[in-house]
Amino acid sequence: MIQAKGMAAPTSKAPLKPYTFERRDPKDHDVVIDIKYCGICHSDIHMVRDEWGPGHFPMVPGHEIAGVVRAVGPKVTKYKVGDHVGVGCLVDSCAECAHCKQDLEQYCMEGQTLTYGSMERDGSGITQGGYSNVIVVKESFVVRIPDSLPLDKAAPLLCAGITLYSPLAHWKAGPGKKVAIMGLGGLGHMGVKLAKAMGAEVTVLSHSESKRDDALKLGADRFVLTKNADAFKDNAMYFDLIINTVSSADLEMARYFSLLKLDGTLVSVGAPDKPLSVNVFPLILMRRNFAGSAIGGLKETQEMLDFCAKHNITPEIELITPDQVNVAYERVLKSDVRYRFVLDMGKI
Amino acid sequence: MIQAKGMAAPTSKAPLKPYTFERRDPKDHDVVIDIKYCGICHSDIHMVRDEWGPGHFPMVPGHEIAGVVRAVGPKVTKYKVGDHVGVGCLVDSCAECAHCKQDLEQYCMEGQTLTYGSMERDGSGITQGGYSNVIVVKESFVVRIPDSLPLDKAAPLLCAGITLYSPLAHWKAGPGKKVAIMGLGGLGHMGVKLAKAMGAEVTVLSHSESKRDDALKLGADRFVLTKNADAFKDNAMYFDLIINTVSSADLEMARYFSLLKLDGTLVSVGAPDKPLSVNVFPLILMRRNFAGSAIGGLKETQEMLDFCAKHNITPEIELITPDQVNVAYERVLKSDVRYRFVLDMGKI
Repeated sequence: MIQAKGMAAPTSKAPLKPYTFERRDPKDHDVVIDIKYCGICHSDIHMVRDEWGPGHFPMVPGHEIAGVVRAVGPKVTKYKVGDHVGVGCLVDSCAECAHCKQDLEQYCMEGQTLTYGSMERDGSGITQGGYSNVIVVKESFVVRIPDSLPLDKAAPLLCAGITLYSPLAHWKAGPGKKVAIMGLGGLGHMGVKLAKAMGAEVTVLSHSESKRDDALKLGADRFVLTKNADAFKDNAMYFDLIINTVSSADLEMARYFSLLKLDGTLVSVGAPDKPLSVNVFPLILMRRNFAGSAIGGLKETQEMLDFCAKHNITPEIELITPDQVNVAYERVLKSDVRYRFVLDMGKI
Repeated sequence: MIQAKGMAAPTSKAPLKPYTFERRDPKDHDVVIDIKYCGICHSDIHMVRDEWGPGHFPMVPGHEIAGVVRAVGPKVTKYKVGDHVGVGCLVDSCAECAHCKQDLEQYCMEGQTLTYGSMERDGSGITQGGYSNVIVVKESFVVRIPDSLPLDKAAPLLCAGITLYSPLAHWKAGPGKKVAIMGLGGLGHMGVKLAKAMGAEVTVLSHSESKRDDALKLGADRFVLTKNADAFKDNAMYFDLIINTVSSADLEMARYFSLLKLDGTLVSVGAPDKPLSVNVFPLILMRRNFAGSAIGGLKETQEMLDFCAKHNITPEIELITPDQVNVAYERVLKSDVRYRFVLDMGKI
């Protein structure tokens, strides 16, 4: 077995603390990765606090993993020692269902194996995530990080990046399209950069005037302060596509639907812990769509990384040491981060 | 002016009673129609009771109109005296906006003129609907009823028919597609017949066992009693398309979303008077869509009538006299009609 050091929540809701554990020895198709950096995703906080159901503890969170290949199993063909690689939210899926066959492992019909907190498909144990110094992952769930992307900034692309890239690509953000990003946080700021690079006109919808300058600096063409009395009237039927990155149940969805053109789509990528209140009239009156989207498949994640390398897109990050993770969680909950914390796992 | 007799609600929430009023003399492009039959739509009840906002009274409801051309204006080219024609929910629109130019008058960006309760575009007065013996409508808002369709049964096609036809066509119900219809009422029973004729496999989702026999008789391939404990589990990820005809805010939408395949769509065609409670997770986890759809444009309404004639599709109706309208309303509210009341306007 491989000795691993990480940061774990020993029990639900407890602060994270140092934790030593074991990774499996590499099997034929496994890649052993020295983790260099791991992003902090809001879902890590939901998970260690059991807000999405009971978890397995001790829990090592983290699914925005960037590192360097330490070793490979005997049948690995895609990677060699020293390669820059990443691991996102998934480490396994059935590979046999109609969705996996279409490279949509994120929608595996048998249920995916999450990078942490999931039972391994062979029943050998619960997966542990990227707040650690080493991980062992099947090569088909490893992606290549192009050399031009610094590893620390590449880490958040593995969740925040693909979570925005996938719906923008699926609903065809591009030249001539007007795209809005709701919320300018870890997800939203990637949405701005990606949609802009795809060629769309990009508007940030935010209730916080303090985000205006950043929105424009990040590349947004427009900023709409949703607290303004006329914001919704002035932008009625304006957008082809709205990506909602705000995980709040208090949004008045009907107002946001009213901003969509005929046949436009609002896609939620973050789920609030309570149901949303949805007035159906604005959907009916302009044949609008309300959809959801989850991360992306492995093929699309690689495509996203290559796209980011080509267009020189990286997230804005604040690099911290693993012992700062609990403070970072508190700051994430207060939206006090611009725009993603990344743990320097070399300092574990 | 043309003298008209009808049934009107004198004030909000009051019972309907006989009412005489005037229709305009036909202008260049107008068609004067002797109304033979008019269907009763649930929205008529919402309208006369001010449940969708304050209305104009006295109000003559009715937008499922079938009749015979009595006279035409000097520049009318499409219709002549004696033709069988219909009028649906709309009698005018701007004709200039991007949506009208695409034959999507139901989504007119300037706001459509409804068959009753709307201000005429020239400001000359409030429109009055089809619970009457004569109506005057611009020829571009009149459709031709094929000779093979009896006028009484054709009437409900003008709203109930097109309301189901349009989303079924837009979201491509057809061979190889699995379509569910939620609710077997005036709208739902048309959905079964239309989706079946389009070549889809059709399932009725109903909470009422008493609808099972009718569902199968109307042509459904399957009936799922949603009260059954395993109904949702057994049909998880089964449908490409679900049309929701149930205007209740009490539906647990997440359970219905779970019945959709990856990228499937649930379309609501009836709006409850309260917001729905929507858990977003099942949308996110299978990239599902929740959409709305409103009636159809004039071109599509004609296409639907021709489709119904070709496939011999007509609604199940209960023909009543105008003096029975208030009793009929009570029965509609109790879902005690199989499946559409039609007023015999020759008996006014």
